[in-house]
Amino acid sequence: MPKIAYLESVRTHNRLSADVPQTLDPATAESLYVRYDMDELKKTATRDLPAKAAAASVTSLGMWRYACVLPDVTPVTLGEGWTPMLQSKRYPGLYIKEEGANPTGAFKARGLGLAVSMAKHYGLKHLAVPSAGNAAGALAAYAAAAGITAHLYMPKDVPFANYLEGIVYGADVHMVDGLISDCARLVGEEIKAQKAAGLPAEEVWFDISTLKEPFRVEGKKTMGYELVEQLGWTYPDAVFYPTGGGVGLIGMWKAFDEMEELGWIEKGSKRPKMYALQASGCAPIVKAYDEGKQVSEFYQHAATFAAGLRVPKPYGDQIILDILRESGGRAIGSTDEAILASILDWAKNEGLLLSPEGAAATAAYDELIASGELKPTDKVVLFNTGAGLKYTDMIAEAMHLRRPGSLPTSMPVGGIITPV
Amino acid sequence: MPKIAYLESVRTHNRLSADVPQTLDPATAESLYVRYDMDELKKTATRDLPAKAAAASVTSLGMWRYACVLPDVTPVTLGEGWTPMLQSKRYPGLYIKEEGANPTGAFKARGLGLAVSMAKHYGLKHLAVPSAGNAAGALAAYAAAAGITAHLYMPKDVPFANYLEGIVYGADVHMVDGLISDCARLVGEEIKAQKAAGLPAEEVWFDISTLKEPFRVEGKKTMGYELVEQLGWTYPDAVFYPTGGGVGLIGMWKAFDEMEELGWIEKGSKRPKMYALQASGCAPIVKAYDEGKQVSEFYQHAATFAAGLRVPKPYGDQIILDILRESGGRAIGSTDEAILASILDWAKNEGLLLSPEGAAATAAYDELIASGELKPTDKVVLFNTGAGLKYTDMIAEAMHLRRPGSLPTSMPVGGIITPV
Ligand SMILES: Cc1ncc(COP(=O)(O)O)c(C=O)c1O
Ligand SMILES: Cc1ncc(COP(=O)(O)O)c(C=O)c1O
Repeated sequence: MPKIAYLESVRTHNRLSADVPQTLDPATAESLYVRYDMDELKKTATRDLPAKAAAASVTSLGMWRYACVLPDVTPVTLGEGWTPMLQSKRYPGLYIKEEGANPTGAFKARGLGLAVSMAKHYGLKHLAVPSAGNAAGALAAYAAAAGITAHLYMPKDVPFANYLEGIVYGADVHMVDGLISDCARLVGEEIKAQKAAGLPAEEVWFDISTLKEPFRVEGKKTMGYELVEQLGWTYPDAVFYPTGGGVGLIGMWKAFDEMEELGWIEKGSKRPKMYALQASGCAPIVKAYDEGKQVSEFYQHAATFAAGLRVPKPYGDQIILDILRESGGRAIGSTDEAILASILDWAKNEGLLLSPEGAAATAAYDELIASGELKPTDKVVLFNTGAGLKYTDMIAEAMHLRRPGSLPTSMPVGGIITPV
Repeated sequence: MPKIAYLESVRTHNRLSADVPQTLDPATAESLYVRYDMDELKKTATRDLPAKAAAASVTSLGMWRYACVLPDVTPVTLGEGWTPMLQSKRYPGLYIKEEGANPTGAFKARGLGLAVSMAKHYGLKHLAVPSAGNAAGALAAYAAAAGITAHLYMPKDVPFANYLEGIVYGADVHMVDGLISDCARLVGEEIKAQKAAGLPAEEVWFDISTLKEPFRVEGKKTMGYELVEQLGWTYPDAVFYPTGGGVGLIGMWKAFDEMEELGWIEKGSKRPKMYALQASGCAPIVKAYDEGKQVSEFYQHAATFAAGLRVPKPYGDQIILDILRESGGRAIGSTDEAILASILDWAKNEGLLLSPEGAAATAAYDELIASGELKPTDKVVLFNTGAGLKYTDMIAEAMHLRRPGSLPTSMPVGGIITPV
């Protein structure tokens, strides 16, 4: 495991020390990337190391097989990463990266697995997150594993599974009458108040929001390494990624940079076109992309049953838009109707129960196949970012499906109100 | 992939051809094992092959890495197997085999993945299964992937997720007012009626019940190979397995036999003690074991929220009891209260949301640690056979947990009644 050389702000390349926990670049409020001494790393980190690591220890069966390109830290692991790469039964070039196989049923486990490992290393005691739902569930799990207290803020109408995760993992759960943006505001205000009240530093919550600390991106970059390794160290023609905050997209792009620098993949190889898929009920990136804008605007009245995509204004919008354009990909929004239809299509015809977020990607894929922008033989890696089973309530409701018979067991509604 | 030499009945060793689909030994009604020409296999199948296969093709990232000891068939795969092996954070010798990472969130994917691959190979068009819930979900998924019709019979009070799986995968779903034993009876009667009505052979359903055809055991044996490979080709001291029908236990024992014969593990190595864990509300194996019986009796008034363990009379009871005794293990039942407490304990202290079935195993583990029958340093592999997230409704109900706020979304109850 390499030592972190420094943390670097994304655009202005300011350098910060990784010896203490960092959030954003204090000068510019930019996100930070983890940087290693690449000249040093090139000498030791060969691309056969991941497979060797996986064979040597059960801790490295998942994403920690990439320990040689991750920070030098003791992993808090629940078995995240190294997920299946499934070949579509209908489209010869299409691969589904099945991230629902991760702990807590979502790819969020990668980013929060690493971020919590680092938080433990720094001795942090309280982690807070505003979340569309799955990040909250993942933080709750990893914090429990690490003996850290998790403070979760999520919209009150997230899938029931996200609420239950918070409760069973013993987190401090706040169900908010609003969107992730309201959650972010509440977390920010709480931390400000804690500081104003003069709470001892170790009692003040650390904000582990998307792109407001460097390690969630760093964990999610493993998706980029993984897809390339699983395709025999080659790039696909395109990557389809359901985009809320965009961390995975950003992480994968960082992985491609690193792999080329390390010589794991030939420099100058044609990078995949990156597609950001959103729900038309909340499509700030699609709007900004189509309008040729550099940044997105706050998306008013955001509403979609693809709960993880309800991010009205991603913090990393500019980075995302840059990557889409540089790669030659683009952003596409799908309606909730198209998303539900795609869930049912994939379940019935391929035996896969996608998350609504994943189905936003398959719905867009269908559109591009129909228009001829993509051919069924083009090699595409499409991320199903979450397990459909986490959305039983949302999918059943969207289908107007009711359980037969009169039954004692049901998903409980109403009752206790958690103050926000 | 080796050709099947023959199918062999478990006790009387009658041989049957695998050229046509088989159910039970027609002479003795015993279950059948798949047998290969082991002398031939020894020459080619070395234990480095699984890792090589996994590196060579995405189809072999999961259980198909063991293709060299599985029937020669085209895999219908959804990414099953090669699941995480997690080290407990509290008990130095305890490993959790996280089978919730499988497609459809349960280890059932292994057995049904192979059984459906074989069914496709035989050209079967209709597969029927009586199920405690998860086998139904897995069959529905694999049948959808294979283009085969699945007929599911399950108790009407299974977790909602199991019902939803049946519907979205496009199966023919029957919610039965009764237990898996009633489901089995209904499937049997239906097939009998189809034959009596003179339905063309390809229209008659094939009964893919636990231990009533040879390939579900054959798929589940990969758990035995996997745990040994992941522990560096050594046996643990004990294996903890939540037992309903007992297929996994039987499959693992078969794997141990084969590995010793192939020289993948030294002959005469001390086998793990096999523990069958049940819920005290449905504990036929525990009762038979404690009473020194050879077979179990039908367990009256079976009731437990560990839905997968509601099997009042496992078809393979005698094989299970033989294995427990031969290995020096035993059977233990836990109350629903202890199971729920163990779910919460593991979530809060280890960051793992176990299925109630998995928690029947952890609850028993705690008991044996407390009594001193096991030491925390004893090397134990404990199977969490399903994802806790599949049981959000059951767990919430057991906890008397209600979602905060008044919300539009809930797990729907009542309504359409599916005729059985
Ligand atoms: C299942 C799922 N997919 C996609 C996303 C969006 O992820 P990102 O923020 O990395 O764009 C989320 C975020 O909550 C999610 O839960
Ligand atoms: C989660 C889970 N665990 C355990 C079992 C019991 O499995 P077996 O029939 O192999 O004993 C089942 C069966 O339905 C199950 O769904």
